[in-house]
Amino acid sequence: MNIKVKFLDISTEPAVLINNEDALKIGGKDNDRVRVEGKGSTTALLNVSDFVCPGEAILSSNLKDKIKASDGDELNIVYASSPESVRNIRKKMDNEKLSKEEISAIVTDILENRLSKIEISAWLTALYINCMDIDEIAAFTEAMVDTGDRVVFDRSPVYDFHSMGGVPGNKITPIVVSIVAAAGFMLPKTSSRAISSACGTSDFVETFCDVEMDAETLKRISEKVGGVLAWGGAMNLAPVDDLVIKVEHPLGINPRAQMLASILSKKLAIGATHLVMDIPTGSGTKVPTIEVARTYARDFMDLGEKLGIHIECAITYADQPVGSAIGPKLEARECIRILEGEKHPASVIEKACDIAGIILEMGGVANGGEKARELLDSGAAMKKFREIVAAQGGNRDIKSSDLVPGAYVTEVISSKSGYVHAISNKDLVSIAKAAGSPSDKGAGIILMKKKGQRVEKGDVLFEIYGDNEAKVDRAKELAAKYKPYEIEGMLLKRVTAPRTR
Amino acid sequence: MNIKVKFLDISTEPAVLINNEDALKIGGKDNDRVRVEGKGSTTALLNVSDFVCPGEAILSSNLKDKIKASDGDELNIVYASSPESVRNIRKKMDNEKLSKEEISAIVTDILENRLSKIEISAWLTALYINCMDIDEIAAFTEAMVDTGDRVVFDRSPVYDFHSMGGVPGNKITPIVVSIVAAAGFMLPKTSSRAISSACGTSDFVETFCDVEMDAETLKRISEKVGGVLAWGGAMNLAPVDDLVIKVEHPLGINPRAQMLASILSKKLAIGATHLVMDIPTGSGTKVPTIEVARTYARDFMDLGEKLGIHIECAITYADQPVGSAIGPKLEARECIRILEGEKHPASVIEKACDIAGIILEMGGVANGGEKARELLDSGAAMKKFREIVAAQGGNRDIKSSDLVPGAYVTEVISSKSGYVHAISNKDLVSIAKAAGSPSDKGAGIILMKKKGQRVEKGDVLFEIYGDNEAKVDRAKELAAKYKPYEIEGMLLKRVTAPRTR
Repeated sequence: MNIKVKFLDISTEPAVLINNEDALKIGGKDNDRVRVEGKGSTTALLNVSDFVCPGEAILSSNLKDKIKASDGDELNIVYASSPESVRNIRKKMDNEKLSKEEISAIVTDILENRLSKIEISAWLTALYINCMDIDEIAAFTEAMVDTGDRVVFDRSPVYDFHSMGGVPGNKITPIVVSIVAAAGFMLPKTSSRAISSACGTSDFVETFCDVEMDAETLKRISEKVGGVLAWGGAMNLAPVDDLVIKVEHPLGINPRAQMLASILSKKLAIGATHLVMDIPTGSGTKVPTIEVARTYARDFMDLGEKLGIHIECAITYADQPVGSAIGPKLEARECIRILEGEKHPASVIEKACDIAGIILEMGGVANGGEKARELLDSGAAMKKFREIVAAQGGNRDIKSSDLVPGAYVTEVISSKSGYVHAISNKDLVSIAKAAGSPSDKGAGIILMKKKGQRVEKGDVLFEIYGDNEAKVDRAKELAAKYKPYEIEGMLLKRVTAPRTR
Repeated sequence: MNIKVKFLDISTEPAVLINNEDALKIGGKDNDRVRVEGKGSTTALLNVSDFVCPGEAILSSNLKDKIKASDGDELNIVYASSPESVRNIRKKMDNEKLSKEEISAIVTDILENRLSKIEISAWLTALYINCMDIDEIAAFTEAMVDTGDRVVFDRSPVYDFHSMGGVPGNKITPIVVSIVAAAGFMLPKTSSRAISSACGTSDFVETFCDVEMDAETLKRISEKVGGVLAWGGAMNLAPVDDLVIKVEHPLGINPRAQMLASILSKKLAIGATHLVMDIPTGSGTKVPTIEVARTYARDFMDLGEKLGIHIECAITYADQPVGSAIGPKLEARECIRILEGEKHPASVIEKACDIAGIILEMGGVANGGEKARELLDSGAAMKKFREIVAAQGGNRDIKSSDLVPGAYVTEVISSKSGYVHAISNKDLVSIAKAAGSPSDKGAGIILMKKKGQRVEKGDVLFEIYGDNEAKVDRAKELAAKYKPYEIEGMLLKRVTAPRTR
């Protein structure tokens, strides 16, 4: 039917709002699709609203370019069936195996905004419950790569590493990249900003140099300096991921197949030939036990074989934060201190050298871990780090003391004596976020005690930093509510023999 | 944070649109929830849009009453976590059994608009894949009843029947209700309008009397006349269903647990004590085989026991439409002709008398089927039908000839001779809908041939009616494309012995 249209900036999904009366004429219902025909034409989601006058349609502005029309134009709006890929989603609901083409159709339709949030949610839920086999995940990964750009390097091999995440304070990236590049290898590292965590790698790296660069710049710096610390989001690598995350996030799920394909698609797109996967394992992370970690490792290696990337996996300790600092400037400071020669915290140094060591060994260096440690201790890594920072527009003479945390600090005190039996990653993340991390760059947490340490009543367990007093107060309230530290005596539970009646 | 708000009639979900910059300050992402605090306060879905100016929020108008604010007010908008029931949905994704309280929380949150389309979609997908056991479905049914009103009759018992649907032309409702009421029993029948079918019972009943009435009127007519033919949608019976259907529809799924709970919640809410379930069975319907039909019958009877309704099931033939007519006026005409004494089509008469017969036997009448036929043949049912029509504001002296189908007619001709081997319900529904059914009351189809009948080349297979010429033409095109009739010779396939080489 012909209907007068008006554009409004209303929706992230391409949408057409019409009155119930007109919807009946078109034969469409809420969440159906309609085809809108102007000089161009496109498909959009139908929203039935009694607020819209009969004979009028409100169109989301994101449709304007495609249909080439203006306010007041009379356009033809007709019922359109849903895209074929909805059938493929239903097939996965029925636990059937999908072909390469079927998977590719779903990925393309998500990218082109042809699948609605309802359908993407059903897809993710079906993936979560029914999973995919290795063939499907490999096809899924390739389909995701095909939706975006690929970086092609003139140097080879291209080393890379990636952490599955879930553990706060994991600030090893600048150290690993600097060591590997100092050894003469190339590692064009892209990282993300925090999605649900307190601080992503890019969130803290951007406190001392630019992380937003296009693929061309990433290529130039990597090939020249050997390393880079870029934010992956500025490049068009497997962009469909961002659309999926928006739906995953409120559901609080991350289906295994989606996670594997998402990680590996970014690595394929960046042209990685050799990849080390860091699988942080511990209670409260994505991977609770070593057994689960092994199944991920197996999947990654099988997928690597299918996709033509050499993958090795490192299962790492993640029962508590890595190092002491959580939050952008605090993590940057701790990281640069280590590059400057500081021997503390050992957990960060060890983890960085272990990961870098595996990469060096992939490159043919014997005793990679030792070599990595040498490059760190000798200052070679720091020298390389300065080159990278300078190439990314930062200060070549950077010092850890340049990074000044937030002006507002408060201490969280132990209410009893004993030993630190557990530290909740999840609670600390919530507290750091309440303090303002990662958008407030000075906000975060410094842990004064870690697992196994003796604590006396009145000792400081951790400090909360912030750029804003009210946020620090809120974070402290949260700390009092959550109690992220478990302090117990050495005797955890007394088991006595059953009494006789 | 404090932000200036503007209301706009934009969304069926309660939504708040803010700029990306402000979203970062609040710490919220697309599809997160925020709490909006005016004189009142409420929770809404966050939409991040670069079109909204920083420092400004656009709020959907459906929030206005709850937060008691006006355009230009500065309101506090803060991040809010998602409702607890999202955890219950995840539990069902993990194939765990849900408690009564957990199910009730989901149902309440859907009704109160606290769960978004993304979450409702995940819920339905999880239900589709992981199902529910009988205890869960019973709890689900009761939770759905609790969200709406209940009708309490002064007469008892309250008889009811319901068809699972999926077969076009199933116009038996007025006949069954009239027979049962003529026998002195009470059957307060509520029906639906078409959701995906070509014509719901209410769509054709409203061609000769009013179907929209409140619960009070339904009660009054039922108790006085013994029968009623109401549209269930005008009453507030288990209203959560309508919200769920909006999400089910684009996915093209109807999870078994949802379907069972949805049917029985309406029946519980109307106060039914005795229920006959019609389970149409045949290829292309919801229930493809007798075996599947039996599992539904078992579920209905088990659920009836738990919920305190006496349920019997009738598995009925649905490999082709019931009777000859599809579409509002055409079905009404066929139905009233039978009440007037017409002996054709036998399939409608038989099915109506079978279902009415089971109800009469539940009420203690011996040989219910025969008694039903007697009441139809004697004109007692027609007399009762006239009373019902009059009570619902229709013409007591109604004749089948009052129902005049659409002015535009076209014939679909057989291109070969043979026997009708199959008729596709699904294709006929699409063709009837293309002709304008159910919103164009004169639109629809009359079948001239049914399964097993001999057809000569050039014979009319079916006629398409419509109120609008263009729609009839489109329906005819669709008929040519779909070919809903399979015409074959008696010899379907010749099997020969394998040849020797």
